[in-house]
Formats: sequence, structure tokens, C-alpha cells
Amino acid sequence: MKRLRIGIVGGTGYTGVELLRLLARHPQAELAAITSRKEVGTPVADMFPSLRGQVDLAFTTPDDAPLHTCDIVFFATPHGVAMAQARRLLDAGVRLIDLAADFRLQNLTEFTQWYGMEHACPDLLQEAVYGLPELHREAIAKARIVANPGCYPTTVQLGFAPLLRTPGLVEATHLMANCASGVSGAGRKAEIGLLFSEASDNFKAYGVKGHRHGPEINEQLRRIAGAPPGSSAVDCLFVPHLTPMIRGMHATLSARLTPAGQALDLQALYASFYAKEPFVDVLPPGSAPETRSVRGANTLRLAVHKPRPDMAVILVVQDNLTKGASGQAVQNMNVMFGLPENMGLDGLAVLP
Amino acid sequence: MKRLRIGIVGGTGYTGVELLRLLARHPQAELAAITSRKEVGTPVADMFPSLRGQVDLAFTTPDDAPLHTCDIVFFATPHGVAMAQARRLLDAGVRLIDLAADFRLQNLTEFTQWYGMEHACPDLLQEAVYGLPELHREAIAKARIVANPGCYPTTVQLGFAPLLRTPGLVEATHLMANCASGVSGAGRKAEIGLLFSEASDNFKAYGVKGHRHGPEINEQLRRIAGAPPGSSAVDCLFVPHLTPMIRGMHATLSARLTPAGQALDLQALYASFYAKEPFVDVLPPGSAPETRSVRGANTLRLAVHKPRPDMAVILVVQDNLTKGASGQAVQNMNVMFGLPENMGLDGLAVLP
Amino acid sequence: MKRLRIGIVGGTGYTGVELLRLLARHPQAELAAITSRKEVGTPVADMFPSLRGQVDLAFTTPDDAPLHTCDIVFFATPHGVAMAQARRLLDAGVRLIDLAADFRLQNLTEFTQWYGMEHACPDLLQEAVYGLPELHREAIAKARIVANPGCYPTTVQLGFAPLLRTPGLVEATHLMANCASGVSGAGRKAEIGLLFSEASDNFKAYGVKGHRHGPEINEQLRRIAGAPPGSSAVDCLFVPHLTPMIRGMHATLSARLTPAGQALDLQALYASFYAKEPFVDVLPPGSAPETRSVRGANTLRLAVHKPRPDMAVILVVQDNLTKGASGQAVQNMNVMFGLPENMGLDGLAVLP
Amino acid sequence: MKRLRIGIVGGTGYTGVELLRLLARHPQAELAAITSRKEVGTPVADMFPSLRGQVDLAFTTPDDAPLHTCDIVFFATPHGVAMAQARRLLDAGVRLIDLAADFRLQNLTEFTQWYGMEHACPDLLQEAVYGLPELHREAIAKARIVANPGCYPTTVQLGFAPLLRTPGLVEATHLMANCASGVSGAGRKAEIGLLFSEASDNFKAYGVKGHRHGPEINEQLRRIAGAPPGSSAVDCLFVPHLTPMIRGMHATLSARLTPAGQALDLQALYASFYAKEPFVDVLPPGSAPETRSVRGANTLRLAVHKPRPDMAVILVVQDNLTKGASGQAVQNMNVMFGLPENMGLDGLAVLP
Repeated sequence: MKRLRIGIVGGTGYTGVELLRLLARHPQAELAAITSRKEVGTPVADMFPSLRGQVDLAFTTPDDAPLHTCDIVFFATPHGVAMAQARRLLDAGVRLIDLAADFRLQNLTEFTQWYGMEHACPDLLQEAVYGLPELHREAIAKARIVANPGCYPTTVQLGFAPLLRTPGLVEATHLMANCASGVSGAGRKAEIGLLFSEASDNFKAYGVKGHRHGPEINEQLRRIAGAPPGSSAVDCLFVPHLTPMIRGMHATLSARLTPAGQALDLQALYASFYAKEPFVDVLPPGSAPETRSVRGANTLRLAVHKPRPDMAVILVVQDNLTKGASGQAVQNMNVMFGLPENMGLDGLAVLP
Repeated sequence: MKRLRIGIVGGTGYTGVELLRLLARHPQAELAAITSRKEVGTPVADMFPSLRGQVDLAFTTPDDAPLHTCDIVFFATPHGVAMAQARRLLDAGVRLIDLAADFRLQNLTEFTQWYGMEHACPDLLQEAVYGLPELHREAIAKARIVANPGCYPTTVQLGFAPLLRTPGLVEATHLMANCASGVSGAGRKAEIGLLFSEASDNFKAYGVKGHRHGPEINEQLRRIAGAPPGSSAVDCLFVPHLTPMIRGMHATLSARLTPAGQALDLQALYASFYAKEPFVDVLPPGSAPETRSVRGANTLRLAVHKPRPDMAVILVVQDNLTKGASGQAVQNMNVMFGLPENMGLDGLAVLP
Repeated sequence: MKRLRIGIVGGTGYTGVELLRLLARHPQAELAAITSRKEVGTPVADMFPSLRGQVDLAFTTPDDAPLHTCDIVFFATPHGVAMAQARRLLDAGVRLIDLAADFRLQNLTEFTQWYGMEHACPDLLQEAVYGLPELHREAIAKARIVANPGCYPTTVQLGFAPLLRTPGLVEATHLMANCASGVSGAGRKAEIGLLFSEASDNFKAYGVKGHRHGPEINEQLRRIAGAPPGSSAVDCLFVPHLTPMIRGMHATLSARLTPAGQALDLQALYASFYAKEPFVDVLPPGSAPETRSVRGANTLRLAVHKPRPDMAVILVVQDNLTKGASGQAVQNMNVMFGLPENMGLDGLAVLP
Repeated sequence: MKRLRIGIVGGTGYTGVELLRLLARHPQAELAAITSRKEVGTPVADMFPSLRGQVDLAFTTPDDAPLHTCDIVFFATPHGVAMAQARRLLDAGVRLIDLAADFRLQNLTEFTQWYGMEHACPDLLQEAVYGLPELHREAIAKARIVANPGCYPTTVQLGFAPLLRTPGLVEATHLMANCASGVSGAGRKAEIGLLFSEASDNFKAYGVKGHRHGPEINEQLRRIAGAPPGSSAVDCLFVPHLTPMIRGMHATLSARLTPAGQALDLQALYASFYAKEPFVDVLPPGSAPETRSVRGANTLRLAVHKPRPDMAVILVVQDNLTKGASGQAVQNMNVMFGLPENMGLDGLAVLP
């Protein structure tokens, strides 16, 4: 089989270097181009010394890069870039995976409210497929544009999905998602709040008044539950926290169980729901997953608890840069091109 | 005024060294003895180099230590030690502060269930005062035995107290406390799970099936709410997490508001409730307290949020070794002996 | 005694907040003004939540601040600011302590080479006293301008001083200083390299081709040894490293001993040299000081080793923000104004 | 080709789990048995959740394990175990790689002095090959017993080798190795000093009076330089430090250059020496390697500096669990069995 020609737009962030780490070892991937307006000419291995001797590309401008000759282009860019370049690439027959938010939120008002810009191509937005393979595998396989989910939404959706797919198990109006993210989730940005001396040995909530991933979470949870868009029948209160680790995301999800939910064997429900998923690991009863158990791996692990008869607590972990971003993007690529879903993604977590 | 003669039983743990750090600078404290069966003869400054040149004591056996000549003895021991030695010291006129759990739980069945031992002196347990000065200041002032609260219970109680004191503001049957603790909260114990290589760069829940602080939290929350012991009218689901920092504790508390609660100005409620408290800092609306803002200080900071009209979210931080343990113990001592409550406790947090 | 009126120019960095932490509890200090052009009007406690309720000042512009009415002004500014404002303040009778480099290097050529600017007032530079109290106490007491040493130079000088003061003990042409600094030493600057996700779980050397503190170290080591400026008779190879901790600095100093040095009892030499110093702690033979033993304290601890008969290895630790910066500045202030040298500096290290 | 049957003795430590991580993806490896006396029956994935779904083995006793049917057995055990079991396995035709120290030190007196036991089989010790492939590839290929070097010795030897192989370039009597290790280098042992609350936010030297890796380093450096065993012509002062990171090792090596050494282009010397090595990366002039650039990878990176004309400083990094232990062991296995040297070892470093 011919290798896939791959372009990466905006590879100077953490999702960029994670894409490179994974694609450099993907048997069917051929890195054709990586772009960065600021770093034109810089070898990627100069910026990311972990890639020395493994990735020979240098950054080019998007204008010069042979992106239109690629089979697939990943956007590891700030919000707003992918939607500006999408149509031209699609017209050239290139398929797209956007790791930013341009194609995630179907609600245009919310998109503008949270991202501070008008959407450049609502028609493409409607066409785009939300890239959570465990829930939308068939649509992804045919998609021209895949909106790679955010790290929090991946965690929360896969954690709640089994409970929401069967109607009437939980009080879906008051779902709770208490999440903690490693600092790399905020990106490779020179901001005071992300400095080692600020974020180390420290724990805090943030975005309590509202976080961009909140509407994405609720829009998708409603879909999962079969509730209409904007319905208050499904509403999740999402509280993100920053924890002093580089990678990793943890969610403590909770919901009040209805009598129907209380009667159900939740462990069996989850085990069955994810029985065939290569990247979802349902832990034995009584477990508490650790973020380090998935460090650098594309795996999401979860544990199901019923600490009192009328409450479900689901604990979920994944690596925000792998299953929460670039690993999932490669997983989507594999699905889109009919490759084995775990191709290039079988590395084990680095522990300790 | 004559200085207080102070004894510390079991000073080889983190609450011990924190007591020493604080008491070494307390203007009215005279360290008379510190005991440890394992470390007899070792100067405390050899074990804790931060104390070199500041604390000249060496560890002695409890048998040799002049504990009965002290005004007050702190137990910074494993559970079970204080209750075995309490009566003899009380008989000698010594007042006691126990930093372990011996005098915290009034429910003897729960004590035995969670701590795996019979209570040695139920009569003294009944006499003991729960040492949360913000809620029980007057009783503490007269107490012979003060049960210094655990770090989680301090955080959760002071976070929920204003909401629970006025009846009918929240659905108290389903309170939620998602807490994260620094690793020192688990003590200075040689356990694999507490190793740097295990706990660093990692986040996990623990004790989901049940944690010793759960019954303590609920017993005290019921008291605050005026509910009878064991009543299911007040029930808090408590989920502790371990976060890779040395000190610090964060709680994200949530509750559904009743119509009465929804109508109330929660920020004003909290500001008023804690207006005169020297160690509780109610942050301005929209804030998110950081654990580092109280590192080494006896301060608890909290912020009040209403992310949706029918939900309250209270964010609380404190240092688990200071306000969550030894600082609070010194605060209790000050109250017990009529000293200014902040004496020896006015050090500012170390930031960064 | 009347309290000292104190001004701080440029208090938005880590040396600024550390000055505030210490001065807020200094019995003879009255904070009169703190300036920042960027943060005019912001309460300092909004920027540094650890100061909430303890420091009521807001940042003002240097122009409006009553700096000329102060007894002493600290410059916690980027290099170049103090020398521009010094003369006006001195003329108003204000004494100055500069925590930046403006008055550290007596060699003007080296100053320009390393700091990229001409010196604005060479006459004041000549007048300035190098603020290492253990070595220059008497001159500091009378100084109008004190150049507060950098963190690395403090560590290296106090570590080598006993060996260099007696001529002929070591091969001073080839001194080695391998140092490791916590990340706060680089300041509160929004730079990629200082991000948590870059600096955490990582160790590296930096400035191997040359670091600003190199010439300062050598200029002062020559002074200590009684060698003329620029002499190659004393030359220290300085290699700084960045280690993933917030505060703390460690130096591993080594030198080949001459026969005279080999014959000497080095432990006794150091013990005697620092016998009366309140802030230098010579550890017992065989010790290895830990940075955490001085976290937040103004203490420097060192241990003397002779791992082979002809080599001395001196291990030194201090807190780069306290004894390595702001604590030393307060110590200098105490010396300048005839206060007890440890006033406001007697806080114990926070451990763990 | 038939896959290699592999046994691991003592797989409950960090070198054990790292072996499993690597071997689980090695195309020619078949894990036949893993032993642990303490954990008999425990699935390895229960102890190391990162292996869930990837490694199905459970721990067995060495007695029951089919070790004698293996092609190769790795000892990831405490010192002393391998030498007790070696002969029986060799007799069964099994080849051995010992990750502990049993076959590292040829000097029996030093072995007994540092490891506190008599050597059980001096004849096998003499037969054993020191497993640093870059220096002893041919002997390893034929070896029955490979002594896998310690993490410090690997770093120091590969850092100094080019300078020592050509005689007369440096003053080899006074080599210096200032090294810093991540905490996992101390193993998975329940010791107070390795706790998160002790080792985090802290930096210290240790073993200054002597460290087990000191004699190993000097014995091998003498070999490299062609000096006789025990000769004082080559002597390296080794000072290890503990730095708060999980994985990674950094060495700052220094040596005084002779006139011959001063005249040489050191960068060219190193580039040429390691030109064909797949796992040694000589960085461009002026570089400072970071430990994170090799996190989880089997690569050693180094940079060559001449900060003054008569001094060489070599900066070296590697991952103490990969190139410093288990990765190197797999590399040795590949060499022993004629497999491509990088088979199973081509994973890129995980950064950030």
C-alpha cells in the first residue's frame, strides 16, 4: 500500500510535537510538510530535541508547503486557522483533521461567544464529523473533515456515554464533571500562569464561570442521550482544575441514579459498552485509574463506582496529548483511511 | 506571662515537624519535651535539618519525658496512642490536643469500623471538644481534650458551614465534596504509593469505596445543620484525590440550591459568616483560590460560585499541614489558654 | 525607634513578592510605596494572593510614589533601572539596595559586555558596596548604595571564602562550581523555557558558554583571595544547571588542594570562619545539605568534604529568593540601619 | 526467525517494568516467564497498570518458572541474586543479562567492600562481559553473561571515552563527574528519603563519601584509557546528586586539557568517535542536552564544551531506566542474538 502523504499545519505546539512523535513511527505515514509562519526554516528537531535523528523536516510557510498534494492535513493550530484554509484543501482532494475547535461546536452562536470570531464556513461545519471514534466510527470513516475533540470532552463523553445511551438511568439534568488536567493541556504558550514557578506545587480550579469545553461537552452529551440540541434535559456542570503534572487528565464524573439506574449492574453496562474498543479499558470493580498508567499511550481507562445506592461515580483518565489530542487524531486518520485502528498507536504507557 | 510548657508525643511525622516550626517561634511557647520510641536520643534537628540551630530538643521516650509537668501536650501520633495516655495526663492537670483521630468520631461503631480498634475511653471521648475554632470556639476555650480535625473535614466543613447553618438552602441529602490533597497529607510513611516516582506527575482518586474522613465529615456536617446524628437528611459524597504537590488541599464542593437558596446572595452569606474570622478569607466573586496562596500559612481561602441558578460551587484551599493540622492545633492552644488566636501563626504564605 | 519607611521599585517579580513577605512581618519596617509601571492601581494582593489581608498597598508609578521620603528603597527591577534613578534618590538622602546587577560588577567593560548597556553612573558604582554581609559587614553599615549579590555568587563565594582567605591552600586557578538552581531564579518572566511543561521533570545545564554571574563570581573571588582584579591567579569555572524545583540553589564546589591545604583540617577552618554568623550553618562532617532545609529561610548551609586527599568538595545550599536575593537584601538593610541582623528574618524553613 | 524465549527474574522494580514495556513491543521477543517470590500469582498488569491488556503474565516463583527453557534470562533483581542462579542457567544453555552489580566489578575486593557479600562465582565473573555495546560490541555478541552497566557508569564512560581513548589529551588523574539522577534511579523501594514529600522540590548531593558506582566508573575508565587496573593514572571524582524528576540522568564531566588536548578539535573527535552509533547523539557545538529529550528513549545525547582553553566540559544525558538500564539490556540482547541493534528500541522520547 502506498504510504499516506501527511501535512501538519502549525506544528510548534505540544499537539504538534506529539503528532510528530506518533507519525514518525507510523508504518503508513510519510511526513510531507510541516508549517509554521514564525519558524520558517527551523528544523523541527531544533525546536524539539526529542526528534533529533528521527524527523528531518524543517518548518515551512503554509504558502510554500505542498499541502494540496497530501492525502491528509492535520491542523495543530490556534482556533480559526483551519476554517480559513479548509475549503482550498478540500477542493484539492485533501482530507482534514482539525485539532482546534473550528469544527467542534455545531451551535454557531456558542462558537462565536466562546471563540470570539464568526465562523468562516458554516456549510463545512455542518459537514464536519465529530472525531470520537468510539461513538462515531462510521461517519469518521467517510468524513472529509474531522473535528478532533478537546481533551476534556473526550474524557467526559466516554465516561458518561454508557449511562446516557440507555434513557432514564440518571438524572441527566444535573451531571457533574470534576476534571483535573496536566499543564500541557493549556498549550505551549508563554504565559505567566503556566510557568513552573506558578503551576508547580499548586492546585486550583479555573474557568469556573465558564470554559470553552463546557458547551462542547453539553452539545455532545445531548447527542449521546438523544436529546435535542440545547435541551436542558441533559446538562453537565463542568469544573476544570489545573494539577501540577505535564500530561494527563482525570475526570471524576457523578450522577444521581434513577430507580432504573439503581437496579442496573453498572460495571456490566460499561464492560459491555466498551467490550470491543481497543483504546478504552474498563477497570475491575473498586479500581481508581491513575493518569500515569496512560502516559504517552492512546488509552483511556475508567472505573465505575456506586458509592451510595443512588449515585454513580465514574473515574476516567487519559493522556491529554495522546487520546486527548494527537493520538486520537492519528486514530481518526486510521479510521478514515481504512487502516487498522491501532496502527502507530500501540506504544505502551511510560511508567514510572 | 509565664510561657506554656509544651509536650509533643510522637514528633517524627510531618505534623510533628510542622508543630515544631510553628512553636519554635511562638512567643508564649516553651518546648519541654518531644517523644519518639524509635528515635530516642536523636536530636530533632538531625531528623529535620530545617530545625538546625532553632530547636535543641532530642527525642525521648514517653516514659522519661516530663509530660505530666506540661500545660499542654500535643499528640502527633498514629491513631490509638492518645486515648491510651490521655487519662493519666488529664489527671495530672495537663490539657491535650490530639492531631490523630482518637477523639474525633463520636459514633463508637464508626470509630471501630474505620480505625480497627475499640475506643479505650468512651467517657473522655464524650468530653472531648471538636477543635474547629471557627465553629466551636467557646467550647474549645474550656476543653481539657481537643480533637483536632482532619485536613479534609476542616476544608469541607468550613466550606459548607454557611450553607448548612441556615436550614433549607440546599439539598443536603446530596452534597458533593471533590477534594485533592498534597502527598504530605498521607504522612511520613515508607510506602510504595507515596514514593516520588509513583506520586509525581500523576493524579488519581483514592478511597472511593470509603475513606476515614467520610464519617467524620458527615457527623460534623449534621451537627452544623442541626440534624440528628446519623440522619440521612445531611449526606455528603466525599471523593478524595492525590495530587502531585507536597502541601495543600483543595475542595470543590457542590450542592443543589433550593428555591430559598437560589434567592439568596451567597457571596454576602459567606462574607458575613466569616467576617470576623482571622484565618478564613472569602475571596471576591469570580475567584479561584490556589493552594500555593496558603503554603505554610494558617489561612483557609474560599470562593463562592453559582455556575447555574440552582447549583452552588464552593472552592476551598488550605495547607493540610498548617490549617489542616498543626497550625489549627496551635490555634486551638491559643484559644484554650486565652492567647490571641493568631499568636505564632502570622507567618505569610511562601509564594512562589 | 521610628520605623523605617521603605520603598520598593518594581515589585511584580519574585524578589518583589519575597521582599513583601519578609517586610510585612519586619517589626521596624513600614511599607511606604511599591511601584510598577505596568500594574499601576493593582493591589499587590491581587497579583500575589498570598499577601491578601497582609499587605494593603497598590502599585503606583515611580513618578507618583513618595520614594524620596523613604529611608531606604529596594530596586527589584530589571537591570538598568536602579542606576538611572539612583542619583536623584541619593540626593534626597535615601539609601539604596539594588537587587539587580547595576552595582555588582566593578569592571565596566564586563558590565557592558554582559548586560548590554553602558553604565549610567560609574562614580556611584565605585561608591557602591557589595552586599554580602558575611564578608563586607562594616562597609555595608555605612553604605549609601548596596549591590545585593546574585544568587549564584552568594552561594559560590560563601562556599569558597574560607579556602581562599588563607593564601596557598588550593589551586585557585582551576576552581570549579557546579550549581543547580530552582526555576524561580530565572524570574517571573513569560518565557517558553520556564513553562511547567518544559522545566518540570527535566534537568539541564545552561549558560555553559558564559553566564552573567561568572564574571561577578570571579571578580569577588579574587577580592576574597587578595588577588588583583582580572588576575588569572583565581579563576572559577562556573556551570549553572536548571533543576525542577521552585526555590533553592545547590552548589558543588571543588578545588585541588595544595600540600598546605591537604595538611589543614578543613572542617575546623570552616567552623571557625563562620562561627559567629547567624545565617551560615556549617554542617557536621559527612553531611550533604538539602535545598529544602532552607526553603523560605535566610540560611545558607554547607558541608565540607575531602573525598580524596588532594581534593576539597564543598556542598552549599540556600534559597535563591531568600538568602540568594530578598532575605539578603533585608539582612543588608538591618546592617545599614543598625538593627539586629536577623530582625524579620527568623522564620524557619518550611519542610516538608 | 523463531522468537527469543525470554525470562525475567525479579520483575517488580522499575527496571522490571521498563523491560516489560520494551519487550512487549519487541518483534522477536516472547515473554516466557517473570518471577517474584513476594508476588507469586499476581498478574504483572495488576502491579503496573500501564501494562494492562498488553502483558498477560503473572509472577511465578523462580522455582516453577521455565527459566531453563529460555534463550535469555534478565536479572532485574537485588545484588547477589544473579550470581547465585547463574551457573545452573548457563549449564542449561541459557544466556544471561544481569541488570544488578554481580558481574560488573572485576575487582573482588571492591565488590565485597561495596556490596557487602563475597562473590559466589569468581570464574563466571571473569567470563562476564561488561555490557556497554558502544565500547564492547564484539565481546557482547559472543557473551554468555553480560553485566549491564549501572546508569551513572554508562553516562560517565560514554562521556569520557573519546577523550580517554587517545592517550595524553587530559589530566586523567583528576577527572570530575558531577551527576544528577532522577529518583527512579534509586529503585522502587519503600524508603523515607524517596518519598514524594522528601524528594520533591529538593536537590541534594549524596554518597559524597563514596558511592557504589565510583569503583565501577574508575575500573572501566582505566580500561578505556588502557591503564592497568587500580592505576592512579586515571581517577575520576564522582559526585552524584538527586534531582526531583522521575527519570533522567545528567552528567557534567570536566577535565583539564593537556597541550595536546587543547590543540585538538574536540567536537570533531566526539562526532567521529560516535559517528556510527545508533544510540549516541553528539549535539552541535554550544548545545546543552536536556534529560527530557531522551525520556523513555534509548538515546544518550552529549555536548562538548571548551569553556576555557585548558578545560573540557562534556554534558551528557540519558534516561536512567532506558539507556541507563533496561533499554541497554535489550540493546545487549539484540547484539547477543544478532538482531538489528535498535530492534524494539526505536520509540521516540516522550516530550513534553
